[in-house]
Amino acid sequence: MCDVCVMNAVKDRMLSRRSFFKGGAAMAAGATLGTVAGTPAMAQGHGEVVDMTHVYDAEFPTYFGEPGIEATQAFNFKDHGFNLFNLAVNEHTGTHIDAPLHFSADGQSVDEIPVSNLVCPLCVVDIAERAQDDPDTQVTPDDLNIWIDTNGPFPERFCIAMHSGWGPKTATPGFRNADGEGKMHFPGFHVEAAQMLMEDTGAIAMAVDTLSLDHGPSADFATHYAWLPTNRYGIENLANLDKVPATGATLVVGAPAHRGGSGGPARIFAMA
Amino acid sequence: MCDVCVMNAVKDRMLSRRSFFKGGAAMAAGATLGTVAGTPAMAQGHGEVVDMTHVYDAEFPTYFGEPGIEATQAFNFKDHGFNLFNLAVNEHTGTHIDAPLHFSADGQSVDEIPVSNLVCPLCVVDIAERAQDDPDTQVTPDDLNIWIDTNGPFPERFCIAMHSGWGPKTATPGFRNADGEGKMHFPGFHVEAAQMLMEDTGAIAMAVDTLSLDHGPSADFATHYAWLPTNRYGIENLANLDKVPATGATLVVGAPAHRGGSGGPARIFAMA
Repeated sequence: MCDVCVMNAVKDRMLSRRSFFKGGAAMAAGATLGTVAGTPAMAQGHGEVVDMTHVYDAEFPTYFGEPGIEATQAFNFKDHGFNLFNLAVNEHTGTHIDAPLHFSADGQSVDEIPVSNLVCPLCVVDIAERAQDDPDTQVTPDDLNIWIDTNGPFPERFCIAMHSGWGPKTATPGFRNADGEGKMHFPGFHVEAAQMLMEDTGAIAMAVDTLSLDHGPSADFATHYAWLPTNRYGIENLANLDKVPATGATLVVGAPAHRGGSGGPARIFAMA
Repeated sequence: MCDVCVMNAVKDRMLSRRSFFKGGAAMAAGATLGTVAGTPAMAQGHGEVVDMTHVYDAEFPTYFGEPGIEATQAFNFKDHGFNLFNLAVNEHTGTHIDAPLHFSADGQSVDEIPVSNLVCPLCVVDIAERAQDDPDTQVTPDDLNIWIDTNGPFPERFCIAMHSGWGPKTATPGFRNADGEGKMHFPGFHVEAAQMLMEDTGAIAMAVDTLSLDHGPSADFATHYAWLPTNRYGIENLANLDKVPATGATLVVGAPAHRGGSGGPARIFAMA
């Protein structure tokens, strides 16, 4: 995608497909449907936009287990004529960005990630079936090679996403899935997959539907340390990966723009 | 846009235009340029995406004049191996959303705004020349009628944006433009324009490049109170309105997804 307009690629894909996102066939044909869980835009006539963002509050699971946001009402409509909250937010809460600066001394902060990396092709590796039996499983180079055999070469400047099936678990203890000793068990990317992506492909971002790029029991954050210092970024707690195809969607990553941040909650859409 | 896929509209526009955003003609023709201020995506080969978001920090001007964000470093790379900040944020800081709940008892909170309202056509009313001489000027029904005479009818479910030329002033006292008594002077939407938009058009969002939907000297927030309780939303401090056309772009509004919020900092793009 280096030399080609993102929207030209989108246009080309539009010309060859009518029902793009999973579950959207009836809508694309013009039928009137009720709300499709996770794809509100499709239910309201716009089609072809999927919200990849979890709504979050103090109950949303976090890596460290403490609430990631606290909202304090500073003004209320009854007494002041308007509502306004002050927010206390841990940057790494909800569907959020890991900026390169998160695991490096001087990598790009969240406001410095180029826009050309925030609007990019999305490629999804599905390990959900395996993860049902093995929550500690990881995306490996073998998974990436199978993806290539099935879908062809990865595009340039793309985001690779792990679909582990963890997205619907956010309201349950199964999302953190901590054992009796507090060690968490959820899937992530093996560092060898990160290395293959960096050496052999044009990947610029890595997304997971879990709390960490590294799998839950990781003690060394090997994937974080391999990936982020190269000025590639990460996305954690991405939602609705079951609603998008393995390849062909464009990810639009609404990363926050506070200066110098190591990351932050983001609004993320997939567009056909 | 109610019954037509957003991306179909984008595709149709792509087919008829090559250099869409202002200043993008050379890039669209394949030339290699340096960074174009405010349009980083265009300078990196992707073209056709404009970042409409200001980077913000504690120095960024706010309506009440106090810092809108404070970042506290909880972990640092040297001592802990990673960087992480805790943020204290006033929801109405930087380029941000006014959710309907901001000026109503029970309107949509920021996480409840439908995705179909967050990806929408952008129409820009340019009053920048007039605002140079009269900072208290307002967008009126006459301005909207002139826009229609020039560009044709407004599209369905669109965002109307005021381009007053205030965007480049954010680092100066001229952005708040407070007089000796503390009264601010910057442009906004007249309530009669809001009423016309609600009664005669399909507008679902209103954006300004200033601190408030109402102009600076407003004492009654008439436009806020007319607009937001109808479950239409607002955008304040939108950037780079000089880089987009009067009509034809699609706004992608990365509104924050914290539950129950009255608004919040957003990442916003315009796409051809």
